[in-house]
Amino acid sequence: MDLVLIAIACGVVALLYGIITARQVLGAPAGNERMVEVAGAIQEGAKAYLKRQYTAITVVGVIVAILVLLFLGWVAAIGFAIGAILSGVAGFIGMNVSVGANVRTAEAARSSLQKGLTMAFRSGAVTGLLVVGLALLAIAGFFAYLIGPAAKAANADDVIIGITALALGASLVSIFARLGGGIFTKAADVGADLVGKVEAGIPEDDPRNPAVIADNVGDNVGDCAGMAADLFETYVVTVGITMVLTALLLGSAAGDLLVPLMALPLLIGGACIITSVIGTFAVKLSGNSTNVMGAMYKGFIVSALLAIPLIWFATRHALGDMNAVIGGGNVAEFTGVDLFWCSMLGLAVTGAIIWITEYYTGTNYRPVKSIAKASETGHGTNVIQGLAISLEATALPTLLFTVGIVVAYQLAGLMGLAYAATAMLSLAGMVVALDAYGPVTDNAGGIAEMAGLDDSVREKTDLLDAVGNTTKAVTKGYAIGSAALAALVLFAAYTTDLRKYFPDLDVNFSLENPYVIVGLLLGALLPYLFGALGMTAVGRAAGDVVIDVRQQFKDKPGIMDGSERPDYAKTVDLVTKAAIKEMIVPSLLPVLAPVVVYFVVSAVAGQENGFAALGALLLGVIVSGLFVALSMTSGGGAWDNAKKYIEDGNHGGKGSEAHKAAVTGDTVGDPYKDTAGPAVNPMIKITNIVAILLLAALAGAGNGLI
Amino acid sequence: MDLVLIAIACGVVALLYGIITARQVLGAPAGNERMVEVAGAIQEGAKAYLKRQYTAITVVGVIVAILVLLFLGWVAAIGFAIGAILSGVAGFIGMNVSVGANVRTAEAARSSLQKGLTMAFRSGAVTGLLVVGLALLAIAGFFAYLIGPAAKAANADDVIIGITALALGASLVSIFARLGGGIFTKAADVGADLVGKVEAGIPEDDPRNPAVIADNVGDNVGDCAGMAADLFETYVVTVGITMVLTALLLGSAAGDLLVPLMALPLLIGGACIITSVIGTFAVKLSGNSTNVMGAMYKGFIVSALLAIPLIWFATRHALGDMNAVIGGGNVAEFTGVDLFWCSMLGLAVTGAIIWITEYYTGTNYRPVKSIAKASETGHGTNVIQGLAISLEATALPTLLFTVGIVVAYQLAGLMGLAYAATAMLSLAGMVVALDAYGPVTDNAGGIAEMAGLDDSVREKTDLLDAVGNTTKAVTKGYAIGSAALAALVLFAAYTTDLRKYFPDLDVNFSLENPYVIVGLLLGALLPYLFGALGMTAVGRAAGDVVIDVRQQFKDKPGIMDGSERPDYAKTVDLVTKAAIKEMIVPSLLPVLAPVVVYFVVSAVAGQENGFAALGALLLGVIVSGLFVALSMTSGGGAWDNAKKYIEDGNHGGKGSEAHKAAVTGDTVGDPYKDTAGPAVNPMIKITNIVAILLLAALAGAGNGLI
Repeated sequence: MDLVLIAIACGVVALLYGIITARQVLGAPAGNERMVEVAGAIQEGAKAYLKRQYTAITVVGVIVAILVLLFLGWVAAIGFAIGAILSGVAGFIGMNVSVGANVRTAEAARSSLQKGLTMAFRSGAVTGLLVVGLALLAIAGFFAYLIGPAAKAANADDVIIGITALALGASLVSIFARLGGGIFTKAADVGADLVGKVEAGIPEDDPRNPAVIADNVGDNVGDCAGMAADLFETYVVTVGITMVLTALLLGSAAGDLLVPLMALPLLIGGACIITSVIGTFAVKLSGNSTNVMGAMYKGFIVSALLAIPLIWFATRHALGDMNAVIGGGNVAEFTGVDLFWCSMLGLAVTGAIIWITEYYTGTNYRPVKSIAKASETGHGTNVIQGLAISLEATALPTLLFTVGIVVAYQLAGLMGLAYAATAMLSLAGMVVALDAYGPVTDNAGGIAEMAGLDDSVREKTDLLDAVGNTTKAVTKGYAIGSAALAALVLFAAYTTDLRKYFPDLDVNFSLENPYVIVGLLLGALLPYLFGALGMTAVGRAAGDVVIDVRQQFKDKPGIMDGSERPDYAKTVDLVTKAAIKEMIVPSLLPVLAPVVVYFVVSAVAGQENGFAALGALLLGVIVSGLFVALSMTSGGGAWDNAKKYIEDGNHGGKGSEAHKAAVTGDTVGDPYKDTAGPAVNPMIKITNIVAILLLAALAGAGNGLI
Repeated sequence: MDLVLIAIACGVVALLYGIITARQVLGAPAGNERMVEVAGAIQEGAKAYLKRQYTAITVVGVIVAILVLLFLGWVAAIGFAIGAILSGVAGFIGMNVSVGANVRTAEAARSSLQKGLTMAFRSGAVTGLLVVGLALLAIAGFFAYLIGPAAKAANADDVIIGITALALGASLVSIFARLGGGIFTKAADVGADLVGKVEAGIPEDDPRNPAVIADNVGDNVGDCAGMAADLFETYVVTVGITMVLTALLLGSAAGDLLVPLMALPLLIGGACIITSVIGTFAVKLSGNSTNVMGAMYKGFIVSALLAIPLIWFATRHALGDMNAVIGGGNVAEFTGVDLFWCSMLGLAVTGAIIWITEYYTGTNYRPVKSIAKASETGHGTNVIQGLAISLEATALPTLLFTVGIVVAYQLAGLMGLAYAATAMLSLAGMVVALDAYGPVTDNAGGIAEMAGLDDSVREKTDLLDAVGNTTKAVTKGYAIGSAALAALVLFAAYTTDLRKYFPDLDVNFSLENPYVIVGLLLGALLPYLFGALGMTAVGRAAGDVVIDVRQQFKDKPGIMDGSERPDYAKTVDLVTKAAIKEMIVPSLLPVLAPVVVYFVVSAVAGQENGFAALGALLLGVIVSGLFVALSMTSGGGAWDNAKKYIEDGNHGGKGSEAHKAAVTGDTVGDPYKDTAGPAVNPMIKITNIVAILLLAALAGAGNGLI
């Protein structure tokens, strides 16, 4: 219990850091009147978005909460509520800081690059540390309550189901935020371009276009709030499922070590919060250097290096003897040293995935350069090369994960995999900080442009923004990689749970079982169908934007000469409504698919095959989802930076034919990397979590009301 | 043995039909001097291509044959040689008929639409029936020799390994033909456009462009020769592996029924050759109708309906008592009636997949219309919608296959699946006929244009060609669907073989085995990597074309004013060389991956896990390959027809902004549907076949020389 309290204390440190830094950021000067006006419009839009989004989520959330209550009981329902609410809070705070920091970053960049960097990065760090702080507090607090005041055994059904339900709450809000936010931002982006640039003939980022503010809001909505909810979810699920798997695998056989072992993931997370806070202070440009990426990496490297000894001490503190053998019987034997090395493996995988993603999306390397070169010969060849890179970009991460899986298993079996995933996630605070920095600098550039600031300011924000593109891509690769590992842990929890709840069934998970093949095929289909729905939704919602903006131009003829103000909130609300509407069916897919597959296959071929097909569905969705998500996010990032590379003066530069082709590629990559791709991440986990809770509900293990 | 001879007789009927019809087609008038000149250039190019392609294939084929001989023995080496040579012959004849029929179709279309249709369809039917005839003769003849003059037991190792090696030969040539042909045709297409239309400013299909003939050759190379080799391979593998599985599963336990059961797939194939021949005579326009698609489907429906009673009689003739129970023990029990219903299931799946593919690629339905509509708002939205349709198009086929798998297993276990796949393939003659018709009409239109024939001729060939687009897409869906079923049968053969050769090993194929997960991930990666390499290759080879054409324009300044003739053969040879060079690495992937994965995992985690990972790799490549191939071929077909739909006068018609966007989509779809997508089909099977032969080699079962 002391260990859990230490973790809670670390979570509080993260919150305090967030609050103090947020006050610093928001206390900085916000610039001149015009800047404040533009930023105000973005803030106004953000409020309209948040209101509608949370209303919709509340409706769905309450329905699911009632179902959880009915089938799994009060503890699960409370867990679900904690996960859902805090996931929402993480997104809410992150976005609010972000829309306040954008204008202040623009103002800070008026004095120096270093000041702009500091302002933008600080605001990102607020989001990053609040995300991990809230996530850690959610699980650690809930766990502490359950094993403390509620006096439950650490491996009691209620604890296991409660933590899983907490993960479901986080995942559900996350899929809404990611997909809804993704559809919002890309529908606004495409819609604004179509009706503004093409029809009305006004330039990009022109405040007379009612959809342009929605476009700027979208950057915050998708890249900031959506991303924050996504990483909150990944963190909660990974740490939570490591605890659940520990309870399921070792259970009471672990004796006094059970609670320390379940608390250890929390402790590792707490330790890395401390190193992340220290890391944030290392983000500084050296002298007159303009190497912004180098400055950001300094922060990451400091956090990661400091994490090494801290994870060792945390493990030793929790387990006492690092060489005592734990496990045995059906569970692979392992020692504290093994767990430490698995954690190191997680850190190494994180470093490698960052490097691979940068290779595939950075302007210095072959992939992006090849797309830029292909742009010279037209739109078609740009897209072909981009798709080729998308497909290719799955290779190195897959090889990395297979090596990681084998090494983790060899070291400590399933527990090894779980600890590798946990360690990977423990640095999430720093990674989110790097990512949330992106939309702030993006917006800062837009505000500088719209407010007519000196060109030197725009140059500085452009330097900052270029880095944002890469960090955004890196986070997605990181999130998907860690999600895949976490999902494998979830799958292990499913099979372990199955044996616990249905000890008499002999479920055949062999690849030779036709129902396993059927499950794999159906699971593999889910990310494809999900991606199709997401991409179609962007197109349809963009059409709604066009219609609305045309109407506003007609109703308020004064908009074009500046005598009337467009109703930004109306467009934003419309895009929000469209986004929420469009995301309902895709979001239902991962929730309903496991339930439908289980009941249909059980009806046709018996319960054992039902569980086999369901298990295979889970693995199918993981395997296929990993490839779909990796190819979409890497490809999208590469297209984006190929455009940037051309805009930097290569292959003819801005306005050339190559540039037009690169713009097409960038447009194609947008819903790939910002809508469909990243939303696959929570989708994979929801499918797995629903399956685990379905087991509990079928076994009547959760003290549900019916 | 009598049964095998009946099948051989049916194969001879197919050959006779092919020879007689080919003489009819090639005996028809070839039109005026200009038409003959243009067609001559295409033929010249085709010869240059074939020469180089077969030289390269021979080198690789001899190396592989030697390896087969060394590790598996003479019978296997002979089987391999038969498969490889006849696969090459099928492609060779098909393409030669096709390049002779194009100009005659143009000439026939001068008198009437019906005559043009008859000419083009007849030439397609030649290819179709030669493909299935040669395939059937290859296996049936080899099998008859082995169990007759060579006096081997039907389930002897030599027979099983020999038939599998025959399948490997067919697959190896097929992957060369499909990928090489695919790279060739698309490189020539893109290259000709870039250097002709963009740089030299000469119109499309202008004979002064040395690459334009390569482009026309490419249609035959990719869509005719490549497709023919592909379907030959699918046929051989499916029928062959059904026989192998029968021998492995039932073996001597089947007693006197073993040979009839192994001959039954051959007999079903023979019966359907007869119905296909009859079906070809049903392809006629009713009265003055211009419903070409309807005329084609009439032929297909006649073949399929007649197949129903013939399959019943064939089954009864082979088994005697349709209700006698076969199998038992470890093998699911089944009767002749069950096998008949499984065959019917195969026919039903074929019908359904044709309908689904037409829905996703036909101009009358939502998917294509949605892409056409999205073209109105630009290149980007066209590509986004096309990608969304690509992803979505995997859903219905997947649901269809899962239902098919479950029903087949319920009826007759693994044997049921094998018979469903065999029946699906039995109609290949008719399907190939419909497909091979496509490039003929495409070329006919080009020749009509280049030879300056009356516009009414071009109108008729356009009507014929529009149907060709759909039938091409349909064949690909059909080929991939049947390949997936066949691959599942191959996987079953792998696991059965494993138990036979290594009875002492306890290989754990459970999804809970980490090496199974690793195998699934690596298997799923193969189609992605393969697709990436294929798409990149098209871009690179197109660049080579541009350089060569520039050089020809420089060396022969008389080309532009018509005083010098371009060296078509040189460009064709260059594209061929580039295509062959570019396809080596991708083609090595499926051959080497199983071997490497087996040895690496065995070294790390023991032989049992090596076999488990290898098995999972096979299933991973099937599951992932199915989605990659379906999405690429359907998406590509939809993009193509969206362009056609706009050219028919919708959304602004030819020359509009929407049309330009649709051209981009079509370009993107080209390597998707004609290079990477269809080549995934042989790739899946090569991986599986190599694994099966690896087992035999490891067990020393094949009397290899070392």
